[in-house]
Amino acid sequence: MSDTVTTFRERCREIQRLAGVLGLLGWDQEVTMPPRGAATRARQRGALAGLVHERLTAPELGALLDDLAGAGALPDDVAADVRVLGHQRERAVRLPASLVRELAEAVGLAQPDWVAAREHDDWDRFAPHLARIVDLKRREAAELGIGDEPYDALLDEYEPGARTAWLLPVFADLRTALVDLLGRIDATVATLPAGPYPPARQEMLSRDLLAAIGYDLAAGRLDVSAHPFTESPGPGDVRVTSRFVADDLLSGLTATLHEGGHALYEQGLPEHLAELPSGQAVSLGIHESQSLLWENHVGRSRPFCRWLAPRLREAFPTVLAGLDHDALYAALNTVRPGPIRIEADEVHYNLHIVLRLEIERALLTGDLAVRDVPVAWRDRARDLLGLEIADHRTGALQDIHWCMGALGYFPTYTLGKLYAAMLWSAVRRDLPDLDTLLAGGEFEPLLSWLRTHVHARGSVLPAADLCREITGHELRADDFVAYLAGKYVDGA
Amino acid sequence: MSDTVTTFRERCREIQRLAGVLGLLGWDQEVTMPPRGAATRARQRGALAGLVHERLTAPELGALLDDLAGAGALPDDVAADVRVLGHQRERAVRLPASLVRELAEAVGLAQPDWVAAREHDDWDRFAPHLARIVDLKRREAAELGIGDEPYDALLDEYEPGARTAWLLPVFADLRTALVDLLGRIDATVATLPAGPYPPARQEMLSRDLLAAIGYDLAAGRLDVSAHPFTESPGPGDVRVTSRFVADDLLSGLTATLHEGGHALYEQGLPEHLAELPSGQAVSLGIHESQSLLWENHVGRSRPFCRWLAPRLREAFPTVLAGLDHDALYAALNTVRPGPIRIEADEVHYNLHIVLRLEIERALLTGDLAVRDVPVAWRDRARDLLGLEIADHRTGALQDIHWCMGALGYFPTYTLGKLYAAMLWSAVRRDLPDLDTLLAGGEFEPLLSWLRTHVHARGSVLPAADLCREITGHELRADDFVAYLAGKYVDGA
Repeated sequence: MSDTVTTFRERCREIQRLAGVLGLLGWDQEVTMPPRGAATRARQRGALAGLVHERLTAPELGALLDDLAGAGALPDDVAADVRVLGHQRERAVRLPASLVRELAEAVGLAQPDWVAAREHDDWDRFAPHLARIVDLKRREAAELGIGDEPYDALLDEYEPGARTAWLLPVFADLRTALVDLLGRIDATVATLPAGPYPPARQEMLSRDLLAAIGYDLAAGRLDVSAHPFTESPGPGDVRVTSRFVADDLLSGLTATLHEGGHALYEQGLPEHLAELPSGQAVSLGIHESQSLLWENHVGRSRPFCRWLAPRLREAFPTVLAGLDHDALYAALNTVRPGPIRIEADEVHYNLHIVLRLEIERALLTGDLAVRDVPVAWRDRARDLLGLEIADHRTGALQDIHWCMGALGYFPTYTLGKLYAAMLWSAVRRDLPDLDTLLAGGEFEPLLSWLRTHVHARGSVLPAADLCREITGHELRADDFVAYLAGKYVDGA
Repeated sequence: MSDTVTTFRERCREIQRLAGVLGLLGWDQEVTMPPRGAATRARQRGALAGLVHERLTAPELGALLDDLAGAGALPDDVAADVRVLGHQRERAVRLPASLVRELAEAVGLAQPDWVAAREHDDWDRFAPHLARIVDLKRREAAELGIGDEPYDALLDEYEPGARTAWLLPVFADLRTALVDLLGRIDATVATLPAGPYPPARQEMLSRDLLAAIGYDLAAGRLDVSAHPFTESPGPGDVRVTSRFVADDLLSGLTATLHEGGHALYEQGLPEHLAELPSGQAVSLGIHESQSLLWENHVGRSRPFCRWLAPRLREAFPTVLAGLDHDALYAALNTVRPGPIRIEADEVHYNLHIVLRLEIERALLTGDLAVRDVPVAWRDRARDLLGLEIADHRTGALQDIHWCMGALGYFPTYTLGKLYAAMLWSAVRRDLPDLDTLLAGGEFEPLLSWLRTHVHARGSVLPAADLCREITGHELRADDFVAYLAGKYVDGA
């Protein structure tokens, strides 16, 4: 058996190395690639993705997985390797190459028209592409045959094991609680001075911030890109990007904290399972919980503002001479409805996701036609956010996800919020003096807790099991709602 | 047959794409990779190199090559694809995997000890590694069975088709002519003021210089690395690095021109043969001819100095206020013997290569033992350069090539010098007003000539044939010697 495990793990590592290279190609494309390299890069990514698919679907790998499945009890980490890689392989095997190709083509064609449609606020220009993509995703779901409804198969790609029927009651609770909460929140708007905050100075500050929360810059780097992201080509190499604009200090700062949270997770993955499926991040929901925990639970807290305010005064002595931590806290926590998801505050954000989940499901079941999406969007925005959507640009054309074929992705953002709040409850229980630590800039105890309970666990347990083990609860909205109520209603 | 060609070329393109990704991994390692990413990167490169080897040695590819070989007359470019890829495949097939692995390990172990040996000037620390590497390279040559002597098989990796017996008479002519020439050259040393030349300002100047000679920055980029190099991940993406030190303006400037020459070659490769073997650079010798043509024949010429001097005065108005083009020319063309190859002037440089070629051949035939290399080095340096070598650091430990297993590489530097001079003769014949053009900063006619005669030819002809076709001559030292004599003796 140990020979089988060794051989199986060598295959796993090769696939992971190629996936890491694919990650680096993506990073380079956003950060360092010259503009005219795009066509070559697309072909290189295609070649590598083809190789990963070839390795993943190789009959030898199937035989190894069968041998291990029939081998009786395996050590936890090996069992996790089998579970995670088996899941990836199953998806790869079930999808016909022709469908994968058709989807890649449809997505490739959709992207420029989505950009143009946004620019000209022209839904009809994007609609045929979305119709084609929805059709292909429906076929994908049918081929995969995972779960009870088409949406399950798509969701499962991003949050392995999650099912729509498991999410819906939690999302329903959340929706009710948020609408109730919004009626009780003071809508005072606070902002910082308009700057200027020189981007180079912001970048230095972000670097200091990353170092302060425990990100190892010798095993990573901070760059600037159009959209902030984190990419990990592999152990010892976890890269962060952010974005700095001269008239808005907080957007860059919170983006850095957000990506820093993702990066701390990647840097904390178990070394002894490096390059193995069991040693990777377990799901997008858990990944997002790590970014949100640092961005929101830490970064938008009163104690953190106490620590940060003097640092901001020092970095921008003219513009922020009079900044106190209460003003910083108020600016970081303004609650105000708006049509754009990525600009939403902590309270409104999940309502944007509820809206998308409802529309995506209806598209997949066929209950909603693509041409009716703008109307459905407007109706739900009125219901959920109390807003009149003025145009497609700030409505159904705002997100890139659909034109990339990423239906089923949105719920992972909300899962991240809920997991983050559940973990935060557990952290507070285990570290009673957390506020004092944060106000003093002592982030190590928090990081150490996350390392032990989340990061170092890799994928040994599925996300839902990991959540239950750490928090003692199934996924629920309660912690998140209590966190918001404590912060925005009780003013804790 | 056209189906066979299509299938064959698809295989070629896949291999080339993976090779391009390997190139990017190398670039990233030197320019952007965080220090702790090294181990992961080594494994990723190993995985990709393994895949390239797998594809190259696949029986299906062999069958396609056999079919094409038996197909009668093929179009020139397809015939070149067959020649170049067949050559790569032949090398890959003949080398046992165990030998490749042993070499990779030996090289991996040698590198840190070479660094330490240099630091402590301790030949004995490096000697056992070199002995092992020479032994393995001798086995490699025997397995490859290319040419008439072991050195042929190694040389052939870098300069396909070149043979030692073909080089030796040319190198002998060159050696005699250089020693004679050195007796007639005025050894006055000229330098520029010691600076400071702020590196950021030098980098801007280098960027302007690259744009001026025709390098497309939208299809490339300039970065800083420890050792300047050019890397081309693929069409539309050809990257240059340079190196800037505050007290030496000319080293960074000539490095940029040198790498710019390499990059212009890569950017000028035939688009219709992109990603095919016939569309790649033909040999290291021809590649080096392109860098040297821009660095030396252009960059160290009087007309170029006329164009450059006012730009340098403008870039460094304080330090270079009084700079005239004659002083710049003198500083760029000082002839002075020294022990270090990479610091050698145009006249001495090839004598460093003659020294290395003699020692490498003697090591491979067994006529020279590794322990006797330092003595052999000292004796030859006295003969060839008229220098007493004081230590190993400035003697046999100065180059990284041997510890990387790159025996047979050095002669390509000299081939580059000779090819560059032969091409320069041809350019001068075709562009009689070249000096006027260069003095006016009009580099386009020269680049256009190189595009047509060299770059756009790719690998359709082997290097020696390409040289014959363009210049009307076999490889010879005459043009190079005449160029040096005209410049350094006649003061043209």
